[in-house]
Amino acid sequence: MNSATTQDSKVESMTYSVAVSGASGYAGGEILRILAAHPDVEIRTVTAHSNAGQPLILHQPHLRSLAHLTLQDTTPEILAGHDIVFLALPHGQSGQYTDALGDAALVIDAGADHRLESADAWAQFYGGDFHEPWAYGVPELPVAGGKQRDQLVGATRIAAPGCNASTVSLSLAPGVAAGVVDPSDIVTVLAVGPSGAGKSLKTNLLASEILGSANPYAVGGTHRHIPEIAQALAAAVAPTESGADTTPAIAISFTPVLVPMARGILATSTAPIAPGVSDAEIRAAWESAYAGESFVQLLPEGQFPRTADVIGANTALLGLAIDRAANRVVVVAAVDNLVKGTAGAAVQSMNIALGLPEGTGLTVNGVAP
Amino acid sequence: MNSATTQDSKVESMTYSVAVSGASGYAGGEILRILAAHPDVEIRTVTAHSNAGQPLILHQPHLRSLAHLTLQDTTPEILAGHDIVFLALPHGQSGQYTDALGDAALVIDAGADHRLESADAWAQFYGGDFHEPWAYGVPELPVAGGKQRDQLVGATRIAAPGCNASTVSLSLAPGVAAGVVDPSDIVTVLAVGPSGAGKSLKTNLLASEILGSANPYAVGGTHRHIPEIAQALAAAVAPTESGADTTPAIAISFTPVLVPMARGILATSTAPIAPGVSDAEIRAAWESAYAGESFVQLLPEGQFPRTADVIGANTALLGLAIDRAANRVVVVAAVDNLVKGTAGAAVQSMNIALGLPEGTGLTVNGVAP
Amino acid sequence: MNSATTQDSKVESMTYSVAVSGASGYAGGEILRILAAHPDVEIRTVTAHSNAGQPLILHQPHLRSLAHLTLQDTTPEILAGHDIVFLALPHGQSGQYTDALGDAALVIDAGADHRLESADAWAQFYGGDFHEPWAYGVPELPVAGGKQRDQLVGATRIAAPGCNASTVSLSLAPGVAAGVVDPSDIVTVLAVGPSGAGKSLKTNLLASEILGSANPYAVGGTHRHIPEIAQALAAAVAPTESGADTTPAIAISFTPVLVPMARGILATSTAPIAPGVSDAEIRAAWESAYAGESFVQLLPEGQFPRTADVIGANTALLGLAIDRAANRVVVVAAVDNLVKGTAGAAVQSMNIALGLPEGTGLTVNGVAP
Amino acid sequence: MNSATTQDSKVESMTYSVAVSGASGYAGGEILRILAAHPDVEIRTVTAHSNAGQPLILHQPHLRSLAHLTLQDTTPEILAGHDIVFLALPHGQSGQYTDALGDAALVIDAGADHRLESADAWAQFYGGDFHEPWAYGVPELPVAGGKQRDQLVGATRIAAPGCNASTVSLSLAPGVAAGVVDPSDIVTVLAVGPSGAGKSLKTNLLASEILGSANPYAVGGTHRHIPEIAQALAAAVAPTESGADTTPAIAISFTPVLVPMARGILATSTAPIAPGVSDAEIRAAWESAYAGESFVQLLPEGQFPRTADVIGANTALLGLAIDRAANRVVVVAAVDNLVKGTAGAAVQSMNIALGLPEGTGLTVNGVAP
Repeated sequence: MNSATTQDSKVESMTYSVAVSGASGYAGGEILRILAAHPDVEIRTVTAHSNAGQPLILHQPHLRSLAHLTLQDTTPEILAGHDIVFLALPHGQSGQYTDALGDAALVIDAGADHRLESADAWAQFYGGDFHEPWAYGVPELPVAGGKQRDQLVGATRIAAPGCNASTVSLSLAPGVAAGVVDPSDIVTVLAVGPSGAGKSLKTNLLASEILGSANPYAVGGTHRHIPEIAQALAAAVAPTESGADTTPAIAISFTPVLVPMARGILATSTAPIAPGVSDAEIRAAWESAYAGESFVQLLPEGQFPRTADVIGANTALLGLAIDRAANRVVVVAAVDNLVKGTAGAAVQSMNIALGLPEGTGLTVNGVAP
Repeated sequence: MNSATTQDSKVESMTYSVAVSGASGYAGGEILRILAAHPDVEIRTVTAHSNAGQPLILHQPHLRSLAHLTLQDTTPEILAGHDIVFLALPHGQSGQYTDALGDAALVIDAGADHRLESADAWAQFYGGDFHEPWAYGVPELPVAGGKQRDQLVGATRIAAPGCNASTVSLSLAPGVAAGVVDPSDIVTVLAVGPSGAGKSLKTNLLASEILGSANPYAVGGTHRHIPEIAQALAAAVAPTESGADTTPAIAISFTPVLVPMARGILATSTAPIAPGVSDAEIRAAWESAYAGESFVQLLPEGQFPRTADVIGANTALLGLAIDRAANRVVVVAAVDNLVKGTAGAAVQSMNIALGLPEGTGLTVNGVAP
Repeated sequence: MNSATTQDSKVESMTYSVAVSGASGYAGGEILRILAAHPDVEIRTVTAHSNAGQPLILHQPHLRSLAHLTLQDTTPEILAGHDIVFLALPHGQSGQYTDALGDAALVIDAGADHRLESADAWAQFYGGDFHEPWAYGVPELPVAGGKQRDQLVGATRIAAPGCNASTVSLSLAPGVAAGVVDPSDIVTVLAVGPSGAGKSLKTNLLASEILGSANPYAVGGTHRHIPEIAQALAAAVAPTESGADTTPAIAISFTPVLVPMARGILATSTAPIAPGVSDAEIRAAWESAYAGESFVQLLPEGQFPRTADVIGANTALLGLAIDRAANRVVVVAAVDNLVKGTAGAAVQSMNIALGLPEGTGLTVNGVAP
Repeated sequence: MNSATTQDSKVESMTYSVAVSGASGYAGGEILRILAAHPDVEIRTVTAHSNAGQPLILHQPHLRSLAHLTLQDTTPEILAGHDIVFLALPHGQSGQYTDALGDAALVIDAGADHRLESADAWAQFYGGDFHEPWAYGVPELPVAGGKQRDQLVGATRIAAPGCNASTVSLSLAPGVAAGVVDPSDIVTVLAVGPSGAGKSLKTNLLASEILGSANPYAVGGTHRHIPEIAQALAAAVAPTESGADTTPAIAISFTPVLVPMARGILATSTAPIAPGVSDAEIRAAWESAYAGESFVQLLPEGQFPRTADVIGANTALLGLAIDRAANRVVVVAAVDNLVKGTAGAAVQSMNIALGLPEGTGLTVNGVAP
């Protein structure tokens, strides 16, 4: 038997059996790409609803090492019986599998179903059945009293983040946590690649529509990642001793723009500078938040990242500017939406949950040019 | 003789002789592309410093109808003696030709030398000799008491706008003029194509660096178009009868991001909603400002433009959203940086100055996909 | 009444009424873009099957000057009653409208239904009902005794060419006609943009699949444009006086490769050098074939075209190399698949058929960069 | 001391010290990216002529794990004293370092200086000093009596291949070796990304020139990879027992086309079918040549590769079609020019030379989409 349970995960000879649903899509494919190089897992089962019965390699022709796998149907029965199950399904679908996977050591949902703590926010931005929140898979995120990583240790149910949401949250949480920026008037605009929208047959995702063009969508406050960011930023603020609600007012103007690159998010996020703070205090907030982190790095002053720097990597690169004339801190963050934004975050969280070295199977180096 | 002076410009049989400097670059090439289809001009002279003596077609292989032209050196003597002179030179160079062109009916500078009214702003953002401001070539821009067009009628010296600057100014001026947004906390992020940076041999403009990547630059308040926007927005506000200085405080957080498309600007500009104004009042500000304009169009509610919609066209398309949760108006504008952002604006301004129909030689229709 | 019949087409005040079917697609959109700037036509009717009832501008947001048009259903009744009808429909559909359009002065089919003269070739490469061949819309193509243009004068039924087919035929026909190359072992490989495949919802046309990738298709002799090329090259050879069949053996290895550009075809076509011909004779074949042509131009020796040089233009640019080591002539041709490859060819042919100046509404200058 | 010599390379605890010259360029960067994940080497020295003294990370911002390295000058003294030296320099420069590196266990030249066996071919296509040929770094290439791999075992001087050359050679060598195709009339056309041209400041490599365009270069038999292909194909043919010269006549029409993707080569290579061979015999030639190879894979009948399938991977994917109408075999090959085309080939060859497992540090899986 090559499976293992979490308690013996540090025994090196153990290998975890894994099932990946949504394996014919972009997020599922990236989970598979990363797991294929992970020394501690065996990809045993891949599932996809409409393509069941076909070879995986027809849908993921870049995954040569997995050419032996055949897509099965996505059913609770087929997903059951694995140590780890990854769900890479459209939101609203993951929930129906959860109950049937009770014996899995670890379930990681790359969809949105288990991200939000607020049923109201779910109803407003998604609709349909609300599901309980799971441990949120952004380990480096500052939360009151520590890091989000703490909540992932030993977790058995993990919600991988929204790619845009985690990018913006990582960009601003240090400043919000330190009180050096005002979260009540955040403005963020993101240049994003179309792979974030999945392998969906929509006219606006056709190559002829995207090539040579920049295309805004979800303008004006309707994007589903907005409440996810607000939740993460609120969690960054420590409650006062008195127990009074100290959650700051948080408002986010959020505009994503599709640009002609397959992968990548370049988020430009700004927030007003809090009164009276110095440049040094501002910069220190980010430096201290990410000191020692491998996968979230603040660039030296005056340097800003490009998405090319992080393609294929589990790295979020941040550049910080302080614009006194505009009275705003500007954080530019580059993330590969499919890696640090989704699949890499999922595997990193898996590693933490299982007690494996956090970077196992992941790389900080991008593929460029 | 096929030349004409401004006073007889409405005589149909007249043809204006034109010289274009910087003819081997991107802005110069676009001026030539448009003028080649303009019925009232004859392109007589094209100049370029380092490529003088070579056929124009070697540097602009798409301009087949101008294959007979040879690049000459850019000197005052060679530019002199034309009815109209276009200067498409790096900033700091145009000024030296101005004096020598005193007899030209019309000089249009596509560079920055004659855009700013403030010597201080010039010193801060550009440096070098300050030159007097010329009539600013954005006809549709609301200014106190009318439109910028009024200042172009009969003008003999015109400053074509900065491409990013005019895009943002057109986006927000209606709201600032109407008092429905607060210009003191503007945030704008622009996805821009590399042609805006010119045909410069810089590593960061190489295809391998741009393809598949989003690249921020001039982050944190250093971009040279910032004072140009501030100037335009200030001009949109009517002085009070008392003569008191009513210029509002204007602050702009401005971040451009190079994305992998040769041309185009997609500017996402936001400003706080002024207290107490209704959605209808907000929308009416933009609708009334651009009612009847061919080349600046506000899309219906809920629609937003793509840069693909305006490539090759002299059109600025705007989409407007009102985000009450974030308390911000969001305007997304799409412009072809080389046309409405530069060469089209220059020719449109030329038409106005000479009394020709404003749209002569220009098109509202883009080339898509 | 603003319509006109062909016999009075040279009366300047006449305007032809036009209907365009398939108006929501890429070919239909490009026909509309060109006709919108054509002084002698009025676009009266636009049709599209599945989108009938919607504003055209929703599907062609770049065609601002046509914002007043509404898509109607594609029926014979709606298309009837116009002077000119353009059919931009999938192959197999055009035929059903032909009979009902008997009173139209001119019908131009941008589809394949009326291109092939051989029912066998139609059956092998397309299948379904065979339709009679119409006048083939590539005016500059050398045919025995003249140019294809001759057959378009006064034509009332015109088949616009396949974009890849006309590009390759124009590349090689001069050499085949002059006997300086051997058409029995042609090899052509084409880099093509996805707009040639239409606005079809297929996974392999999604932006995420095309961006950053080169994708071959129809490899090994299955592409439908192969018999169209063979037909055009056969037509270039003059029959002998004896009346014997002198049609040369023609064989074409044809491989198209989708690359990440919205428009454009760059065809590299090679054929063996005929025994005993000199370099000068080879070059003279192409030079004489296209001497005086505006829209098909042979570049000077040592120069080769890029697709960027012809985007938006009705121009085919050819570069010719003679590789004695490989014993092959190499012709590289750049064409905008939607203009000279489809819509421009259609309008150019329309102009010829109606007796209008051939270049009316068309441009030789591309939009670059 | 953490270095090791070749004789003890199989002792797991040994680590080879490595120097990489040309470390600020694209090929050098890719060598570093791969070596950074290689368990048996330590990157000790990185050099670059003009950027000496600067942090590597400024020029390779995606190589986060190497942020501690500083570029040194490229001199024999600095390169000396390492177990392994990689030279990623422009051709003509590598030779001058060779003598000074006599004590290095292994020198691998990613440039062209040591690829060609023929001084005449060198003079014709490159010029300048001719250098002796080294073991050619394409392990899977069929050569008379075996594979090129055999010549790399224990090699101390290795010439990494030209990216286009190895792609075409791998495409056709099996058929030439088996005698099922005629190498005297090969035609190959390649869609290539600009990274193959290096980080050179040339106008034709600017993003504005490449985006949205396909650009041919070196048309007509002048490309430097032509003799390299001819040499590899000649080596695939077994000499007869009599010792007579059985080298077939080899002629190659070779046309590369720059397309807008940062990396990747899609080579479409065709050769006439030899008389009398069956389809099964043709296919068997390729199947048997690459049976058991991890990094060169023939796709099933009817399938063809995209460059997207191999980005970041050391994999060459081949698709084979037999076009009886054109009497040609068509092989479409996809390769990442920087990996299997250059740096991956170099590291794979290094592994073989040192007796390490051949795939160490390399992956068969691409990064897609």
